[in-house]
Amino acid sequence: MSFPEELYKLQPIVSLTMADQVENQLLDYIVKRAIKPGDSIPKETELAQGLGVSRNVVREALSRLRMLGLIESRKKRGMILTQPDVMKGLERILHPTILDTEVRKQLFELRLVLEVGLGDLLFQRKTDAQMKKLDSIIERERKATTQIERVRCEVDFHATLYEMAGNDTLKRFQTILMPVFEYVVEYESKLDHTSTGTVTHADLVKILYSNNREEFPNAMRKHLLPHFEHL
Amino acid sequence: MSFPEELYKLQPIVSLTMADQVENQLLDYIVKRAIKPGDSIPKETELAQGLGVSRNVVREALSRLRMLGLIESRKKRGMILTQPDVMKGLERILHPTILDTEVRKQLFELRLVLEVGLGDLLFQRKTDAQMKKLDSIIERERKATTQIERVRCEVDFHATLYEMAGNDTLKRFQTILMPVFEYVVEYESKLDHTSTGTVTHADLVKILYSNNREEFPNAMRKHLLPHFEHL
Repeated sequence: MSFPEELYKLQPIVSLTMADQVENQLLDYIVKRAIKPGDSIPKETELAQGLGVSRNVVREALSRLRMLGLIESRKKRGMILTQPDVMKGLERILHPTILDTEVRKQLFELRLVLEVGLGDLLFQRKTDAQMKKLDSIIERERKATTQIERVRCEVDFHATLYEMAGNDTLKRFQTILMPVFEYVVEYESKLDHTSTGTVTHADLVKILYSNNREEFPNAMRKHLLPHFEHL
Repeated sequence: MSFPEELYKLQPIVSLTMADQVENQLLDYIVKRAIKPGDSIPKETELAQGLGVSRNVVREALSRLRMLGLIESRKKRGMILTQPDVMKGLERILHPTILDTEVRKQLFELRLVLEVGLGDLLFQRKTDAQMKKLDSIIERERKATTQIERVRCEVDFHATLYEMAGNDTLKRFQTILMPVFEYVVEYESKLDHTSTGTVTHADLVKILYSNNREEFPNAMRKHLLPHFEHL
């Protein structure tokens, strides 16, 4: 059985393997030449010639790098290397329904680990405005009458902590993981499982005000204990 | 100024924007239809027809999803959704030389945060064999006579902790971040900065043997303190 040349070229597996190779070669090239964000990279036609592949394959590989935020087209300057957005690839696939239970569990554990270890960044960078924001969330929580309001306060409180850590990559990571966390919280609330440990949000805020860095990790551990026990 | 139709179609920006749109539509479709890992997704030709775009554009978008480990081609079954490898996109771009100082710093902070919070997973999952491995690393470190040997022991010790946490996503994350960590360690050693805190690797192992969960986070904080002070 033989296909016309053109059809053969259209077979996805062949063309994707080519794109994989070109992608890897480009990444290698960038690393080995120590190309820095802002530097130009060769034109599509030059790459096709240099690598001995079609422009289509080159374009496909470049498209992937662009999706990862690694390259950008600039008017008059052609393509340049950009400071990659390290979370861009992650963001696209972290939807809870397409992750299996095991991976969801692993990501949830990752969250628990991060929050226990977050203290030093918080003490180093917390601002008065952020501390007031935490106070107001606790106040809202105290007055909450429905489960929905309480869950919202829970989410706001922890999201604010990530903000306070003053680390964009970490914050971004938390935003991406959020749907996974909400998924787990929802799951736990269906189990009629109350997610409050012996240490409350108010206790955590008190520790942040007190500047007692040693107290934070274990207080957060106790706050999250009901989750840890689920693992 | 006007281009022939065909040339116009070859303009990268236009075709990439199309691929972006198709990629987003596909992700949307997967999420909204609640397609699960192992389920089939429509053929390239069906997608092209359904979306009213060329097969080239569809192939480009599919290529991106494949790169992210979200779809796979299976003999006789066509394309299926796979359990995505959540770290795949991250892996491709996390090379220290293409990250700027700020992002490198943020990733290094992330590491410090993770290790302080790691304790509960360690206590829950550590095995005798893993504890023995830590013992032998400490023994090697004690006998080390060169800076290179010491750095190697340092890296091995912390990598073993991640292994012991029994969380593949976390371990993978650490493996990907490793070049960034090594870069920072190298930078610090050039500053003639000794990276040993008041708590040694041997102290940490003692705590792991003692099963004292409360002690771990602050012991790790003190172990990492020289790094925190660099932030």
